Amino acid sequence: MLKPDWIAVDWGTSNMRAWAMSASGTVLDEVRSDRGMGSLKPAEFEQALRDAIAPWDHKGAPMIACGMVGAKQGWMEAPYAAVPCAATPEGFTKPDAGDLDVYIIAGLKQADPADVMRGEETQIAGFLSMNKNWDGVICLPGTHTKWAHISADEVVSFQTYMTGDLFAAISGNTVLKHSVNSDDWDNDAFDGGVADAMARPERLAARLFSLRAEGLLNGMQNGTAKARLSGLLIGAELAGAKPYWLGQQVAVIGAGGLCSLYVRALAAQSAPATQVKGDAITLAGLTAAFKRLKG
Amino acid sequence: MLKPDWIAVDWGTSNMRAWAMSASGTVLDEVRSDRGMGSLKPAEFEQALRDAIAPWDHKGAPMIACGMVGAKQGWMEAPYAAVPCAATPEGFTKPDAGDLDVYIIAGLKQADPADVMRGEETQIAGFLSMNKNWDGVICLPGTHTKWAHISADEVVSFQTYMTGDLFAAISGNTVLKHSVNSDDWDNDAFDGGVADAMARPERLAARLFSLRAEGLLNGMQNGTAKARLSGLLIGAELAGAKPYWLGQQVAVIGAGGLCSLYVRALAAQSAPATQVKGDAITLAGLTAAFKRLKG
Repeated sequence: MLKPDWIAVDWGTSNMRAWAMSASGTVLDEVRSDRGMGSLKPAEFEQALRDAIAPWDHKGAPMIACGMVGAKQGWMEAPYAAVPCAATPEGFTKPDAGDLDVYIIAGLKQADPADVMRGEETQIAGFLSMNKNWDGVICLPGTHTKWAHISADEVVSFQTYMTGDLFAAISGNTVLKHSVNSDDWDNDAFDGGVADAMARPERLAARLFSLRAEGLLNGMQNGTAKARLSGLLIGAELAGAKPYWLGQQVAVIGAGGLCSLYVRALAAQSAPATQVKGDAITLAGLTAAFKRLKG
Repeated sequence: MLKPDWIAVDWGTSNMRAWAMSASGTVLDEVRSDRGMGSLKPAEFEQALRDAIAPWDHKGAPMIACGMVGAKQGWMEAPYAAVPCAATPEGFTKPDAGDLDVYIIAGLKQADPADVMRGEETQIAGFLSMNKNWDGVICLPGTHTKWAHISADEVVSFQTYMTGDLFAAISGNTVLKHSVNSDDWDNDAFDGGVADAMARPERLAARLFSLRAEGLLNGMQNGTAKARLSGLLIGAELAGAKPYWLGQQVAVIGAGGLCSLYVRALAAQSAPATQVKGDAITLAGLTAAFKRLKG
């Protein structure tokens, strides 16, 4: 039976992943589960973890967990550390879990403007552990996209834009639901949306209705409308987050098409950004947290 | 049996209202039905109208209808007249309805920026029939708020903001659904939201997430968050629609709290607006259309 030195756990709203690790940071094995925070009551987390890591002899192995497992609705609420601070702050939250030696990583908070993150701080820590002495701005696209200003290995400030959440709500629950329902895509429409929203972000709600009118009057295709909607929302976000990215070194962390869209939109503002695939980043962050726990 | 000279019909997505009218414009009777456009197939409109006006002897009475009855998904699609034009343009659409003599009012369209209205044009016509030689800007708050520039009895241009649609989608279908669910209200939070969005409309998506963070970190109450959300969205709209209302005579048409919020937000920008209750306005517009049909 495989006996890890420690176990890394990324426990989000929808899924959970765990890695069996050697002390030197080698991945020995990996398991996945669909028992995410959203489907579990607090009392059910311990058994869900035991089931997931059943193939391993976990006796005495510390387990480092990040993500929504530490939310108020999660296993046990982990505090938020106040920025400016290290992405992996000191202090872990330890749920009562019998012989399981579990440590939940703290989230980050900012007093003004009020903001929180939980999970992304571990991706930031992972990126910084792989890029020593890196100063600049990290963008983490998603349902709630984060922009974080990094200096001297600390998160100085951050700002969350609920752009992905808005895209889903507008696409599914407004008059536009009939206008943007498509698997097609149109890069020119995306670029135009970014440019128009950057130039006049205050007209967003009018430009959204125009997507409907363009369909009625001029036969705009749904794939074009969807791409323009995405461009308008990301463009408005870039207009707001300009103090973050302007003149800064920017890293966009995450896999997939959404990150490519952010890189594309930033490039159109003459702001070159590096896209960093997210797969290894979270594990690197959990590894950094393990070292901090042991160090 | 009551015998109207003509019948006025306001047929929207959710409801239908009809008035039995004398030739001189007196209301003789009124009926309401919940068989709105949204619940009817095209072939069902005729019977729905017959059922609603069954108490009246409608023989030979022209029926003037406005609203979504003329949409593509309605009884029969009525064209859009292109602005600049009169709010009640020439030309009615006549569905085949046996001995029912039905005329559907045209909507309005604008080529650039692409925009459409259907129903609001009749409210505008009604307001203008009650306010001769009125020049200025009419604001019609709702799911899709309209701003219309009026000069010399014509709609010169208009702009639709889907602010109400956004408020509902954000309140019901994003992470904020747990933060704004309340019957309480907070005028100071509304005013602050308007001011912040007017000053920095591009930060909207960040300020929305801040409502969630304020609840988690500082215990912001749901009623306060709801009022601030409303203020942020209306403030962003006012920032975008500034070319419409700045330095203009403004009339806000419609009953209820939403219109009062627009008037309050405009007043904070030193833009005094007159609120006009909407009840009689639509009927006045239908009457103006009847006169045009007969004239």
